[in-house]
Amino acid sequence: MTSPGRGRFITLEGGEGAGKSTQARRLVAALSACGVAAIATREPGGSPRAEEIRAVLLSGAAERLSPVAETLLFAAARADHLDKTIRPALARGAWVVCDRFADSTRAYQGALGGVPDDTLSAVERIAVGDTRPDLTLVLDLAAETGLARAAARRGQGEVDRFEQESLGFHQALRQAFLRIAAAEPARCAVVDASGSEDAVAAAIWAEVARRLRPSADAVAARSA
Amino acid sequence: MTSPGRGRFITLEGGEGAGKSTQARRLVAALSACGVAAIATREPGGSPRAEEIRAVLLSGAAERLSPVAETLLFAAARADHLDKTIRPALARGAWVVCDRFADSTRAYQGALGGVPDDTLSAVERIAVGDTRPDLTLVLDLAAETGLARAAARRGQGEVDRFEQESLGFHQALRQAFLRIAAAEPARCAVVDASGSEDAVAAAIWAEVARRLRPSADAVAARSA
Repeated sequence: MTSPGRGRFITLEGGEGAGKSTQARRLVAALSACGVAAIATREPGGSPRAEEIRAVLLSGAAERLSPVAETLLFAAARADHLDKTIRPALARGAWVVCDRFADSTRAYQGALGGVPDDTLSAVERIAVGDTRPDLTLVLDLAAETGLARAAARRGQGEVDRFEQESLGFHQALRQAFLRIAAAEPARCAVVDASGSEDAVAAAIWAEVARRLRPSADAVAARSA
Repeated sequence: MTSPGRGRFITLEGGEGAGKSTQARRLVAALSACGVAAIATREPGGSPRAEEIRAVLLSGAAERLSPVAETLLFAAARADHLDKTIRPALARGAWVVCDRFADSTRAYQGALGGVPDDTLSAVERIAVGDTRPDLTLVLDLAAETGLARAAARRGQGEVDRFEQESLGFHQALRQAFLRIAAAEPARCAVVDASGSEDAVAAAIWAEVARRLRPSADAVAARSA
């Protein structure tokens, strides 16, 4: 999977208000600053067709989709995102930093929605195939703090229905992400997201530098 | 699956211009005339959220979805259609007549799109579960005839991108539906769709009457 010349695939996961999209942009800037080509992208979405599916997923329509239907819909968007954005970028040597990926489906539709593990694994194999993240950063935050941050930005941005759930929901979500990280320590790093934006960016950069050595990659690219 | 008081689930399959939607309406009228509560529905769509997904699936967007992404998107719509429309109708004893269902995914994304059988089976198990059709009517027609009929109605209705494929595509599609019917003769009946609308309706009614005995069902419902 990690072949010479292929970029690295980094995902950011965690609950609401953990700073995933901000930190994705900062990580791309830090990688670029040390000479590594990188793009920031997000889920659901990240390609034109997947953004159309995002609109269906996040719409506040009265008729809720079942967790299984949501799982399939996220997977359809993910398959297109991989085809059109992620795999082409990795193939040309760029690093991809993605705000949410398959672990969010495992946490929201699996741990919280009750979709069984074997269903999630089957759908993930079909949608993702071999393009699994090299590193997943779980931005960890007390549910109260994340919800307060998410509420503070509501004046400015969209409020989707996943942000309207209760505190208990967000506490269970946090535990779901921590369990995912504990089950796959080689892929996942838990980052304390309670500090300042700069502190979190520094903690993320420390994990990325230690595990994926972007400077070595940039040197190799320059000498190729 | 076929429990007392449960309605029957009938799907109509076949290529373009075979008359599926017309025959679905006629079959519902015939069932109603002999005292059986019945609804006509269609895929993709058939529930408010599935109709939103239909718009994404049939849009002529420049960026085509891969066959795997299409399979997942059809399955998401199908899961919601089953949850919101098909299963509630069957549970209250109504018969459901559906214009296209999972066999269309097998034919279009599988036989023609190259999605492997094990992927299709896994997705079908997840989206459909136990709610499999009691009877599938494959409306069979020479590809040339179906395409000519579809072209004739283009002035009036929507032209989606599945109708824009070549004659070779539609010939392969016809063979795919015939193979599905041959593999599951207990569930599937092939109906010659080349005759008049009345002749096709009569052939469909003969199959439904022989296999599912709607009159007996109506008598049972009246005496319950």
